Amino acid sequence: MAFNRKDLLGLSDVTQEEITDVLNSAELMKHILSSTSKKTPHLQGKSIVTLFYENSTRTRMSFELACKYMSAAAANISASSSSVTKGETLIDTGKTIDMMGCDCIIMRHPMSGAPHLLAKHVNASVINAGDGTNEHPTQALLDIFTIRQVKGGIAGLKIAIIGDILHSRVARSNVWGLTKLGANVTLCAPGTLIPPGIEKTGVTVSYNVEDAILNCDVVMALRIQKERQGFSYYPTLREYSQTFGLNKKRMTLAKKDVMLMHPGPVNRGVELSSDIADSAFSVINDQVENGVAIRMALLYLMTRRNKNEDIN
Amino acid sequence: MAFNRKDLLGLSDVTQEEITDVLNSAELMKHILSSTSKKTPHLQGKSIVTLFYENSTRTRMSFELACKYMSAAAANISASSSSVTKGETLIDTGKTIDMMGCDCIIMRHPMSGAPHLLAKHVNASVINAGDGTNEHPTQALLDIFTIRQVKGGIAGLKIAIIGDILHSRVARSNVWGLTKLGANVTLCAPGTLIPPGIEKTGVTVSYNVEDAILNCDVVMALRIQKERQGFSYYPTLREYSQTFGLNKKRMTLAKKDVMLMHPGPVNRGVELSSDIADSAFSVINDQVENGVAIRMALLYLMTRRNKNEDIN
Amino acid sequence: MAFNRKDLLGLSDVTQEEITDVLNSAELMKHILSSTSKKTPHLQGKSIVTLFYENSTRTRMSFELACKYMSAAAANISASSSSVTKGETLIDTGKTIDMMGCDCIIMRHPMSGAPHLLAKHVNASVINAGDGTNEHPTQALLDIFTIRQVKGGIAGLKIAIIGDILHSRVARSNVWGLTKLGANVTLCAPGTLIPPGIEKTGVTVSYNVEDAILNCDVVMALRIQKERQGFSYYPTLREYSQTFGLNKKRMTLAKKDVMLMHPGPVNRGVELSSDIADSAFSVINDQVENGVAIRMALLYLMTRRNKNEDIN
Repeated sequence: MAFNRKDLLGLSDVTQEEITDVLNSAELMKHILSSTSKKTPHLQGKSIVTLFYENSTRTRMSFELACKYMSAAAANISASSSSVTKGETLIDTGKTIDMMGCDCIIMRHPMSGAPHLLAKHVNASVINAGDGTNEHPTQALLDIFTIRQVKGGIAGLKIAIIGDILHSRVARSNVWGLTKLGANVTLCAPGTLIPPGIEKTGVTVSYNVEDAILNCDVVMALRIQKERQGFSYYPTLREYSQTFGLNKKRMTLAKKDVMLMHPGPVNRGVELSSDIADSAFSVINDQVENGVAIRMALLYLMTRRNKNEDIN
Repeated sequence: MAFNRKDLLGLSDVTQEEITDVLNSAELMKHILSSTSKKTPHLQGKSIVTLFYENSTRTRMSFELACKYMSAAAANISASSSSVTKGETLIDTGKTIDMMGCDCIIMRHPMSGAPHLLAKHVNASVINAGDGTNEHPTQALLDIFTIRQVKGGIAGLKIAIIGDILHSRVARSNVWGLTKLGANVTLCAPGTLIPPGIEKTGVTVSYNVEDAILNCDVVMALRIQKERQGFSYYPTLREYSQTFGLNKKRMTLAKKDVMLMHPGPVNRGVELSSDIADSAFSVINDQVENGVAIRMALLYLMTRRNKNEDIN
Repeated sequence: MAFNRKDLLGLSDVTQEEITDVLNSAELMKHILSSTSKKTPHLQGKSIVTLFYENSTRTRMSFELACKYMSAAAANISASSSSVTKGETLIDTGKTIDMMGCDCIIMRHPMSGAPHLLAKHVNASVINAGDGTNEHPTQALLDIFTIRQVKGGIAGLKIAIIGDILHSRVARSNVWGLTKLGANVTLCAPGTLIPPGIEKTGVTVSYNVEDAILNCDVVMALRIQKERQGFSYYPTLREYSQTFGLNKKRMTLAKKDVMLMHPGPVNRGVELSSDIADSAFSVINDQVENGVAIRMALLYLMTRRNKNEDIN
């Protein structure tokens, strides 16, 4: 097996072989998900804690159900009800979870790099479930898995990612993963929402949504995250939607068998018109299902490692 | 088996045979509940999500424990920490839960009809755990089960339901269920708290608590839900209690073997005096126990259906 | 077995033999915790509810994971989302949980004595997880267990407990437990934070931290709980830290093989300097691990009793 890591903090330092390993395991997990009984003993006797410093339903639920389908002991900590409010340091919180027998900590944090700090100080595996504007590797893995299931592979595909690139950890992880697997990635947004120098990662930048979509195999819309913006990066939501929102007419510029993706939750009428969100080329619901499969695969691969091999 | 539904949204469209089916299954479940080990494999491999848009301890806990006793993978979503706050539509939230492999969604929502909307758009079974002022079918089923356990049957019983009928989904579901099974139901409240036209459902309306209680087999008090009232439907809680509150003296008007019921939590000194809440004819605690049995029965009956039969 | 209680409300009325029983069981549980698979059937078919009226991560998680490692059905109720806000009495809440089949209620409450009231009215076992400023017996048991593991026994040890004794349920439970097992306990704090008459429990009181630490086998720092104080018991945190805070220099006054303990979460730089919190003689992380083992032992001992023996 190529994938033999203690932690998954991002896709920036993961190899193509490792990604393929996770995707292959996820294929098996998807079979379990679609069977009559979703109960497997893969994580029996393992203990998994979700430690979320930001609200989340989708990602947390996806991990929680993955744990439960595989018979792990799973517990949730959310920042609002935790010792965090009592002034404990992140490292001390992590060590406490570690000492309670936890095999894997799944962490979301508003500060980029927080999971990396945690991973250095705990014996448990750490999975980054989103850190600031840095990475959200399991989202990118499920996106890549979804594309591979439909297109058979990633290499050579023309993929446009449209929306708030500047604040998007989903975009960053997808850029790392998709380019490693040989896709041609175009990022498209208003100039204010493109991070300077992003072209160095091997992507193309476009400020025109029609240009970006043209002949694409995959169009991925990002969520406009109003809650993450200190000030206005575009005049109004209405103008954003008119200039960068995806609709039926714009999607005709892409290839006939284009896939439309969105990490959810969708702001209908902003990033996407409602008709294309529910159209036949939308794989938004498949992304959700594949998210559980990817997380099952990762948890299985990471907790079956021999913990004694780790020297922290 | 008569009960073979994808969803349980209310008792308004459920037949007498279906109700009897659920009650019979609940008898078996109650045996499990009272045994030394409450662990059964009835829901092994099934995934159940509680989706509560209103606070609840009693109902949510009852479902959660029912799931866990029967070995389901169970997860909770509460509105305050969910994507709901990110502006996702109810249908999109439902589809997301669906795609994560959920077999049954248990939903409470402040809007009447919300579970009906959800049920139309998901493959998972939907159980209404209370929608606005419309229905709360599992509460009525546990009430009916409790009466049947004590009285042997429902037909011909004289049953008074006393309190805030206007806002009570518990009353509505009980009216549907009890009248279908042949009970004579009297609703009693101040005129401001009786919905106009309710007599058409086959019940008697009374504005005098003594009249309503007279010769009753069952007296069911409803909770005064201060949180649901935009303005005052009665002068003061004290006056409500004096005019409609149940006490020892008033209960002597009922039959000697009367059953006193309340869905809980009780406002002691408002709907009921404290002495009768704890008296021998009170079955309030039995209702709680039977609630778990009814929910175990429903979850079992609904998740054992073949999902492939559903065409949505 | 000496330990055969329905409830554990404090260490004030528990015998030396009972404490030893729990510690011996915890030894076995610790083996399970450190094995590859933490799944055991000890609590299979049992139902455990945590009922927390105060925020907690550490204690609640420790109990929750203990339950899950031992295959119990476990559910959480926290005051903020519970019927408590609907005005239900504590006894009614307890009876409701009881009737749902719960075998053990783990309760934290801001009022001293609340778990004692609950225990009188429910069939379920009650474990006090902290009541006001009264007791926190499982914390003291894990502290005693940690000391016994390192020192081999408790009798004759010189133990200093330093900090906010007045508000500390941890201190009170440790005083009861440690003195019963024959330790020589010194309490040390500013005069405003020493409860009058505490010497009658058989402890020594000191107002000077150097005197208290001198030749100690164990030094236990308490958390300064700012949230529990209505007014200022000391001029500033800085002055408290300078006068009573533990640091490397002060710790040299203790025996060479001194153990440094803290119930967590630590306010680094207040109760302890950061270097000694992470030093070789600190057993703070071991306390966390042992907390899970102690709770596993207690839950096992208390739920295996024959419930029919109880007459409430």
